[in-house]
Amino acid sequence: MELEKLIERFWQKDRQALSKLITIVENNSPYMLDVMKAVYPMTGKAHILGVTGPPGAGKSTLVDKLIKAFRNEGHKVGVLCVDPSSIYSGGAFLGDRIRMQWAYEDDDVYLRSMATRGELGGLAPRASEIIKIMDAFGKDVVIVETVGVGQMEADIIRYADTKVVVSVPGLGDQMQALKGGILEIADVFVVNKADTNGALEVVDDLKMMLHLRKESDWKPEIVLTEALNNKGTTELYQAIQTHKNYLNESGTAALMSQTRREHTCLYAMKETIKKYIDHKMEIEEAKLIQKKVREGGLNPYQGANEIINNILKINIREGE
Amino acid sequence: MELEKLIERFWQKDRQALSKLITIVENNSPYMLDVMKAVYPMTGKAHILGVTGPPGAGKSTLVDKLIKAFRNEGHKVGVLCVDPSSIYSGGAFLGDRIRMQWAYEDDDVYLRSMATRGELGGLAPRASEIIKIMDAFGKDVVIVETVGVGQMEADIIRYADTKVVVSVPGLGDQMQALKGGILEIADVFVVNKADTNGALEVVDDLKMMLHLRKESDWKPEIVLTEALNNKGTTELYQAIQTHKNYLNESGTAALMSQTRREHTCLYAMKETIKKYIDHKMEIEEAKLIQKKVREGGLNPYQGANEIINNILKINIREGE
Repeated sequence: MELEKLIERFWQKDRQALSKLITIVENNSPYMLDVMKAVYPMTGKAHILGVTGPPGAGKSTLVDKLIKAFRNEGHKVGVLCVDPSSIYSGGAFLGDRIRMQWAYEDDDVYLRSMATRGELGGLAPRASEIIKIMDAFGKDVVIVETVGVGQMEADIIRYADTKVVVSVPGLGDQMQALKGGILEIADVFVVNKADTNGALEVVDDLKMMLHLRKESDWKPEIVLTEALNNKGTTELYQAIQTHKNYLNESGTAALMSQTRREHTCLYAMKETIKKYIDHKMEIEEAKLIQKKVREGGLNPYQGANEIINNILKINIREGE
Repeated sequence: MELEKLIERFWQKDRQALSKLITIVENNSPYMLDVMKAVYPMTGKAHILGVTGPPGAGKSTLVDKLIKAFRNEGHKVGVLCVDPSSIYSGGAFLGDRIRMQWAYEDDDVYLRSMATRGELGGLAPRASEIIKIMDAFGKDVVIVETVGVGQMEADIIRYADTKVVVSVPGLGDQMQALKGGILEIADVFVVNKADTNGALEVVDDLKMMLHLRKESDWKPEIVLTEALNNKGTTELYQAIQTHKNYLNESGTAALMSQTRREHTCLYAMKETIKKYIDHKMEIEEAKLIQKKVREGGLNPYQGANEIINNILKINIREGE
């Protein structure tokens, strides 16, 4: 079978096989769960880093410098860029030249952008599955970069071990926007373009916000950077390592693994049942029931019961 | 059984029973589908009117005048107010005095506001089920009023037979906001506060937008109103009747009924399966599997399969 060969090549560190497996998951193909079952045993070793912030905050440049910092320490790096807004615009956003250079010149950097269209709800869990594939491939760190600071971005970043929020001076009501869930879950704050006017005000704003945050053992660091001039990147790298150590020493990492395993199980359940239902709804008998419902010959609630009992063969007894 | 008595009283036109049945559906209680099965045969007679527009457009006042217009013609009226934003703020929004007067003084007007918290995805289909209950109760027209013009409002209004979008002069970039799906589905446009500056510009903007809309047999009317002075309400009432006649004569009404029946069937299926899974996940054996997954003793994908096969007893064969 084609898939088995692909997985074999994946274990041989073939980047093309990695790409193809990710595409299977990204497209939610019928083989998606087979891929995940195969790679799962090798997951759990990568440190997952989430980077988010408003458009224009300089995240791309910052992530490039971070990749370099991780590579300097010998770490293998995977990067997943997710742009939920591209669902609407229909376009991918990743194309800068520095990144394309990585792709050709360094075998231990793997870059991927997720240009998912359609089905919004599945974006965050699917990103989480793609991260697992990079993890299983042997990446030491997987960076998930999102554009924007909305609810969807918060959902994607939630899966990361260390969550980095990037802000910059002069973006107006960005603090207001940041309130939408992301502030609450951030572990490290970056104020980028620290050489521009208003940087210290952003730091003050962040400090005030942090004051209002729920008490926790971890006190988020605020790191000033000038990503373009490669200033502050080492400090950011350090802050990330400090948080990683905190996660391990405090037992938080273990708890996060537990939650992640539970989510993976529920996601696999949901996808399996959904696939099963989609398949069954296509058979002739199911279409006949739907037709009768549509044309008014069968009460829709009765029709639903008939499909569940006779087509899906799910044994739902009354009163249960 | 309590529910049977309640439904009996519902058929005797007891408004308290109507309220209680709606609450069962609003809270998604375990009896929800029983209620819907019971009332369904009596649905399909009401004309469903959706009214939406940005906050401050004067929708409440306009709806009040519409209720009066319908009452003058002898129609029984049900009103459902949905404020998706109240999910975040946690508050209900309906409390104006004119409305409270209706509630006490006219047995043939029934008012309800939906202050749903939590679970967002289910808001629109649930509103649609509540409309059905009012329909079965004998309302000739059910008005669904929403606050805001976002995606969620568009989803709710989509269930209506006639979709009315209210705008007013001076709300800035409301046209921009309206683009988000609602403009495309509106059947009647109202420019309220027509006596204020800029009303004709709004009309021009709307005309231009309509020009860009997909060709259709129905050309949306634009009605100028001053709801507070009760001006233009008769014209709006007429425009709604004209659209209702168009729906019936063109066969569109029949097609909409078909789609509605199909949606109802899929919704009932989804809710039934969800209820079944929620119930099964609570039994000891399922919790044990989840615990093993959480603690790392069982591969999450394997765990999902075990739950599906042994707990949910859904017979999903490989390759299907």
